[in-house]
Amino acid sequence: MNKSILITNVTLFTDPGTPLLDNHWLRTQGKRIHSFGPMDTVPRQNDAILIDGKNKLLMPGLINAHNHCAMTLFRGLADDLELANWLNEHIFPAEAVHVNPEMVYWCSKLAAAEMLLSGTTTVADGYFYEEQTAQALLDAGMRAIPAQGIIDFPAPGVPNPKDNIAAAEAFLSAWQQKNERITAGIFAHSPYTCSPETLQRAKNLAREYQAPFFIHVAESRHEQKIIMDPQGTSPIRHLAGLDLLDQDTILIHCVWLDAEDRRIIQESGAGVVVCPQSHYKLASGIAQVTEMKNLGIPVGLGTDGSASNNSLDLFREMDILAKGQKVRTLDASAMPARNALAAATEINARILGFSELGRIAPDFMADLILLDLNQPHLQPCYNADFLVYSANGADVTDVIINGDIVLRERKFLSLDLQETMQMVRKFAAELSGKAEG
Amino acid sequence: MNKSILITNVTLFTDPGTPLLDNHWLRTQGKRIHSFGPMDTVPRQNDAILIDGKNKLLMPGLINAHNHCAMTLFRGLADDLELANWLNEHIFPAEAVHVNPEMVYWCSKLAAAEMLLSGTTTVADGYFYEEQTAQALLDAGMRAIPAQGIIDFPAPGVPNPKDNIAAAEAFLSAWQQKNERITAGIFAHSPYTCSPETLQRAKNLAREYQAPFFIHVAESRHEQKIIMDPQGTSPIRHLAGLDLLDQDTILIHCVWLDAEDRRIIQESGAGVVVCPQSHYKLASGIAQVTEMKNLGIPVGLGTDGSASNNSLDLFREMDILAKGQKVRTLDASAMPARNALAAATEINARILGFSELGRIAPDFMADLILLDLNQPHLQPCYNADFLVYSANGADVTDVIINGDIVLRERKFLSLDLQETMQMVRKFAAELSGKAEG
Repeated sequence: MNKSILITNVTLFTDPGTPLLDNHWLRTQGKRIHSFGPMDTVPRQNDAILIDGKNKLLMPGLINAHNHCAMTLFRGLADDLELANWLNEHIFPAEAVHVNPEMVYWCSKLAAAEMLLSGTTTVADGYFYEEQTAQALLDAGMRAIPAQGIIDFPAPGVPNPKDNIAAAEAFLSAWQQKNERITAGIFAHSPYTCSPETLQRAKNLAREYQAPFFIHVAESRHEQKIIMDPQGTSPIRHLAGLDLLDQDTILIHCVWLDAEDRRIIQESGAGVVVCPQSHYKLASGIAQVTEMKNLGIPVGLGTDGSASNNSLDLFREMDILAKGQKVRTLDASAMPARNALAAATEINARILGFSELGRIAPDFMADLILLDLNQPHLQPCYNADFLVYSANGADVTDVIINGDIVLRERKFLSLDLQETMQMVRKFAAELSGKAEG
Repeated sequence: MNKSILITNVTLFTDPGTPLLDNHWLRTQGKRIHSFGPMDTVPRQNDAILIDGKNKLLMPGLINAHNHCAMTLFRGLADDLELANWLNEHIFPAEAVHVNPEMVYWCSKLAAAEMLLSGTTTVADGYFYEEQTAQALLDAGMRAIPAQGIIDFPAPGVPNPKDNIAAAEAFLSAWQQKNERITAGIFAHSPYTCSPETLQRAKNLAREYQAPFFIHVAESRHEQKIIMDPQGTSPIRHLAGLDLLDQDTILIHCVWLDAEDRRIIQESGAGVVVCPQSHYKLASGIAQVTEMKNLGIPVGLGTDGSASNNSLDLFREMDILAKGQKVRTLDASAMPARNALAAATEINARILGFSELGRIAPDFMADLILLDLNQPHLQPCYNADFLVYSANGADVTDVIINGDIVLRERKFLSLDLQETMQMVRKFAAELSGKAEG
């Protein structure tokens, strides 16, 4: 395969450390970025697909480092509730009845459609029936790190918790080598829903397969109270004591940390992913991202699932990440726009184990998005800050993943959007019908 | 004039206290809402303009209770700085050179375009050369409360501060009766930029003309330190001592209040407008909206100007308003979605003095917007919470103001968008050229 795409007359945002480059071209070759430069050096390229980038901005596709894609079905079902109540009284009961393989496939595909239309090209997911999510994200054209859920309760597809490790291993072994766009992982739900033994077995399984290991941790005050004991254990120290922290571990949330927790994370090499809109909506708190960053901990960004946010638009998430750190510290320089952009691109790539993703550079993966700059809310354009503070996902016009065009002028080449929405509406009608009856 | 619009097959959101009404129709008559009902009662209406609302939601136009429209020119010019530095080192110097009548007209028109495309039908503005803003908002088809700025420094159009009250009076007398869509007002910049005498003269002028009186107050810790004195005066007590607070006074920001300040505001009948994204971005703080609301103070919502937000999308603002109150109080029920919707509709209408605006009801003003529901990020739709947590301004397809269609399928009937953006780009090039040279 020798496919090539040539984008001309475009404004380039290569990475958060580089100023915008006006009037440039970029060429892909196969699945990678080949080269780019100013328009007076544009190559002749007779065999390439041509895209006119006039009045558009070309940037790396955004990376969503934490989602539960299939939970689009539960978006808006139970808002304005705190985490424990939301989870135990609403989400877990709804999941017990309404999660099945077909639901996971279509509701994950809906999430993929929403993410692609808002410029996300890679997503890390954690849920059950994860082979369905993997297939949906693969079919939708995305790059993905689907991770099979492990929890010590009866779960969708794993009615007996004793089978949870075996189910995860079956997923890893089926999906580890299946497609270059899919990296199979493990998602242990949390220290308060998994026993120490389950956590250790889950991490050992991940180590055996050299797979990424995700876990929710230190999300709420409530969790902190459960895990804290008179010996001074915290959720992070609990995980560290079980030898779960290393460079392939991704700690999701990390809202409630103390200085000792941060030191442990920093020494372990583990990555952290914050989900600010979910933390706000569930009243969990504002993570101390600036303090973690100052220690050198890589802190990435995720949306969390649609039931606790309720948007998968990473542009919106970057904005709230940056603004939240400012208002928390009462320091307007606490998180500049470029740091939020880095979190959703190159830092997320690093945390998720991709060495050639998250910026525009020769030989990096051709995961790229175009935004329409010719809109009133993006005028004027003095620098790239607008990507955080003014842009939103609806500004995205085109998406390229692994060198393939997936979305062109907001029309999908990779999925049937009307069919996908129709299927999710069917599941939603069943859910609300049962809720009413 | 007997014009009428009939919208059919639509989902109606009449107000935050009423569930969504599926498959309805609504008819306008002249500048008002005439009637609405379920589709099996749809009237024959041969002379009406017909709009098919299938897969759309019809709701009251949003109201932006605080903006500095012309500051679109300064969007992105100086980000990630705290209020005093941002204002004194960047914004005031740029304004001294680059604000002129033509700039105010076109940059305000750009703001109008952005607001209309994101569903805002009414805006309260405060700036200089306010007659230009008034004209731009009038030309763009909006309902507006433009308020002439008063400040004890040399200001655009008012080089000698001794003329600031006279300039404001000239504006009021020229615009008070000019058009039914325009309500002329007074905007005193703040207690730290206006002397007590200026503040009292400004408020007396507003009283004389029965005009709304806006003032920035209690925005930052810095302001609080300046105004606080050993006798215990706070910015609010300072204003109350000057007899500035009554039902026609709108207090903008109110981030730093104590219980006594809140009691004074509540007794005065004054309205409060918060601008959460601006408060976050300038690291001012999170206003105690829940506490004010519990006292019965009407708390509305504004975006602030484009230089400190940097978006005029009120959907985004409602989302951050609700989520910010939850995370500040660590109580996920602190501000439900419906309260954020009320702030941007019926509460803002009340604060700004409109008795027949901000909800869908017979004889209310026909200021209406349509949203496209047939999009993945709005699936499924169990209730109206999605308007706060999932929707964004780009979902708006049609805008009706005062019974006139202003935007149809995202195309303007009221202004030339390309001309407007081109004019603002010209001013921006002059500004950044000078900054570079």
